[in-house]
Amino acid sequence: MKPVCLVMGAGAGIGGSVAKKFAGEGYHAVLCRRTDEAGLQKLVGDIQADGGDATGFLLNAVNENTIEEHIVGIEKEIGPVEVVLFNLGAQIGNRSLEDTSHKAFELGWRMATFALFRMAKVLLPIMEQRGSGTFLVTSATAAIRGNAGQHSHAAAMGGRRMLCQTLNAEYAPKGIHVAHILVDGAVDAPDTLGKMLGEEAFRKLREKRGLEKDGLLLPEKMAETYFHLAHQHRSAWTHELDLRSFSDLAWWNHR
Amino acid sequence: MKPVCLVMGAGAGIGGSVAKKFAGEGYHAVLCRRTDEAGLQKLVGDIQADGGDATGFLLNAVNENTIEEHIVGIEKEIGPVEVVLFNLGAQIGNRSLEDTSHKAFELGWRMATFALFRMAKVLLPIMEQRGSGTFLVTSATAAIRGNAGQHSHAAAMGGRRMLCQTLNAEYAPKGIHVAHILVDGAVDAPDTLGKMLGEEAFRKLREKRGLEKDGLLLPEKMAETYFHLAHQHRSAWTHELDLRSFSDLAWWNHR
Amino acid sequence: MKPVCLVMGAGAGIGGSVAKKFAGEGYHAVLCRRTDEAGLQKLVGDIQADGGDATGFLLNAVNENTIEEHIVGIEKEIGPVEVVLFNLGAQIGNRSLEDTSHKAFELGWRMATFALFRMAKVLLPIMEQRGSGTFLVTSATAAIRGNAGQHSHAAAMGGRRMLCQTLNAEYAPKGIHVAHILVDGAVDAPDTLGKMLGEEAFRKLREKRGLEKDGLLLPEKMAETYFHLAHQHRSAWTHELDLRSFSDLAWWNHR
Amino acid sequence: MKPVCLVMGAGAGIGGSVAKKFAGEGYHAVLCRRTDEAGLQKLVGDIQADGGDATGFLLNAVNENTIEEHIVGIEKEIGPVEVVLFNLGAQIGNRSLEDTSHKAFELGWRMATFALFRMAKVLLPIMEQRGSGTFLVTSATAAIRGNAGQHSHAAAMGGRRMLCQTLNAEYAPKGIHVAHILVDGAVDAPDTLGKMLGEEAFRKLREKRGLEKDGLLLPEKMAETYFHLAHQHRSAWTHELDLRSFSDLAWWNHR
Repeated sequence: MKPVCLVMGAGAGIGGSVAKKFAGEGYHAVLCRRTDEAGLQKLVGDIQADGGDATGFLLNAVNENTIEEHIVGIEKEIGPVEVVLFNLGAQIGNRSLEDTSHKAFELGWRMATFALFRMAKVLLPIMEQRGSGTFLVTSATAAIRGNAGQHSHAAAMGGRRMLCQTLNAEYAPKGIHVAHILVDGAVDAPDTLGKMLGEEAFRKLREKRGLEKDGLLLPEKMAETYFHLAHQHRSAWTHELDLRSFSDLAWWNHR
Repeated sequence: MKPVCLVMGAGAGIGGSVAKKFAGEGYHAVLCRRTDEAGLQKLVGDIQADGGDATGFLLNAVNENTIEEHIVGIEKEIGPVEVVLFNLGAQIGNRSLEDTSHKAFELGWRMATFALFRMAKVLLPIMEQRGSGTFLVTSATAAIRGNAGQHSHAAAMGGRRMLCQTLNAEYAPKGIHVAHILVDGAVDAPDTLGKMLGEEAFRKLREKRGLEKDGLLLPEKMAETYFHLAHQHRSAWTHELDLRSFSDLAWWNHR
Repeated sequence: MKPVCLVMGAGAGIGGSVAKKFAGEGYHAVLCRRTDEAGLQKLVGDIQADGGDATGFLLNAVNENTIEEHIVGIEKEIGPVEVVLFNLGAQIGNRSLEDTSHKAFELGWRMATFALFRMAKVLLPIMEQRGSGTFLVTSATAAIRGNAGQHSHAAAMGGRRMLCQTLNAEYAPKGIHVAHILVDGAVDAPDTLGKMLGEEAFRKLREKRGLEKDGLLLPEKMAETYFHLAHQHRSAWTHELDLRSFSDLAWWNHR
Repeated sequence: MKPVCLVMGAGAGIGGSVAKKFAGEGYHAVLCRRTDEAGLQKLVGDIQADGGDATGFLLNAVNENTIEEHIVGIEKEIGPVEVVLFNLGAQIGNRSLEDTSHKAFELGWRMATFALFRMAKVLLPIMEQRGSGTFLVTSATAAIRGNAGQHSHAAAMGGRRMLCQTLNAEYAPKGIHVAHILVDGAVDAPDTLGKMLGEEAFRKLREKRGLEKDGLLLPEKMAETYFHLAHQHRSAWTHELDLRSFSDLAWWNHR
């Protein structure tokens, strides 16, 4: 029975690439996403075509008990979840305070903060019993700096980052590695950035960012670092790192 | 008609002391808290006995429309809210992940993050129309560092801090001063710390912290800084500062 | 004998304004600067014309024993240094790595970091004997974020900020208040910004920043916060705060 | 001609382990240290015994022109320096302000900050001409938080961190990867920690930290992350990460 790498939020960007990387290294990749059955099946099929093991689930993480039931089921039917990637985003683009509804603000929190808490609450005790496990969390610049128009996103991500720290403080001594991965730049991900910008603007952005497409963060390259994190020896764990393209400015720099 | 200083979360600690300070400087202090009618009336009465203006409301900020309706009412009946202090805490003591229920985690967010968002959403547009206003937010070390057992509190406060940054980025250019006050230490506040620790432990802590009681943060002294923040000239605003007793370690230091 | 407020780096900006503010509140202001005898005498004369006490010294803080000897002399001849403002800057404008000489890099450190250390080393033990004192340090955004071209300045300011933390950790329990004031924006100071930009560019900047000149930080308004810091009760001290104009972006925000 | 991995500060801890790792992966490791010819030759010999290429130099980085001349020589005689690890420390143990001499303070800066600047100044233009290169910098918790007694160390490391940010901002767009590695814990390194603590205390610490010795950071495990950093694709570079043992508290947490 292969160890499982569970990806919550598996689109054709970071999530799918991480799933593929881990499957290629001997994990059974379990991909969960909210919509797009065809997209999900393509990701699963690609991994299987490469000789890897993968299973896909369409699920809405925000719904009560969804995360909880799936994890129990995966542990029972597929294998032990040794690595989890929490990869749900909550970016809704820039909206002024007046245009940010109570509902939008709450939904940001439900996806980006509360779903992580729920996942930790069901999975960390299982990992604790095994004495090991890796809990990777994709995060964003908004977790450490709040820009205008980012009320829902920044509040949710700020909560996410602090939650990663409390989880790490409580579970690292029990052998569980919690890592907060600060993605500080635009990712070459058609399912998120692409949809947010629209096809045309996304195409232009990719062109503008350079010949080799590496002005955008390339998810298959990012996956290398996710994999490295999950395989650091426990005497030398990283809790937080940033990732950005060489050609992009760090969030703290200005042009 | 005096300008109003509205305190959301007005116990016999920071909230009450800030209300008293502003009332003494010519504001009509409006004190809101969830429970303890007698405690509220004592605070209001003390201010009035000193010749100040004060009004008290018992309200549960978490309930739908409560904040919103009160602000509309205050603006109409009492005066323009020129200064608001958002002072709701969400500290529930240390609880392991397993002992932190979904409900406790959500309640932390409702009080510490969402209530602030709701208050900003109703009040900032009013202040924007006047072209000025001060929005003070009491915050805690948990907003920048997550310790074990602080899952609910740290996630809520981390969200609060990022929200203050987004609000500041959007409203400072419109003349509204948003300040995030990081209270990094125990406050000499019987209504919060006192209740959390119990009477006996609170008494011992006060004794241990020294002759002049200033190992604990003294709320009437903190109020001086709150008042100063609200009266900085707009050419030199502070968005974030820390407060601690001289005899306490900063959060980043270790013994 | 009046208490002394010693300003190291007293030009016609922050330093001069802080000296004036404290003199107006009953301190004997001692102004030290490297050059411009006429400018120094004007600052001293203005304070005296307002009925305050002030003394000026031209000195080069970088020279061996200069700081040390002056402090001994001031303590002996003028009065106890209850408040010191370390206000030496080390901004030399943007220079690429190749254009930053060993000498320029070292000079930045000598002025911005080492001179602060030397001042602390001579003054803090004196304050410790008295059991009180305030050590204010003007700092810059470069202390927390390094931009291209800021090699000398950022390294020096980063050292300054950490030094303020070590001094605070060691001396706060002894009753000495060390505060790190992060000036995050351009100051309306002809002696520094004005000289760096040149008269014409400085004039244009002031015009562009708005009708009421408050797009730039106004030093006489900043001085209010410096004074407040020096008079916080020791139960509620601030170690770090930021200052910027309402119309400027915080360093962590981007347009 | 193999690419060179140059280690400045190559003792039997991080420096030596990184040299060994890179040599094992096809680099010519160049090890530089100030003292202990026998120790240096052992490190070089061990690498060669494993079939790797290594060269050692005894040099005092603080001396004028030493770094500069060695780099020119290495580039000419051994190969292109594709990776450099700046690994000089400046920890001198806890010393009160009164016990920290001007000389000690300055030496900290000369080793930890200025030597890095000098190395960058000679090496980055060479890397720029090649359009690629990796500049790894070992750093310490003192770079982001200053404790009592750490005046020299924290000021030097704070300067180091800001310098890494300015270098990164200027050279990342030119294809050169600058990474600041925050070592947040005690390293199992007899040459530094061992000497600072003394043999007996070091032995006790290793015992106390656990059966598998991994309460201390193990340098050969840390070297895996250094190697990973140097081989991240330029579309997904990390500028800063932390490293600590699973059983240690993060610097921001308290027991």
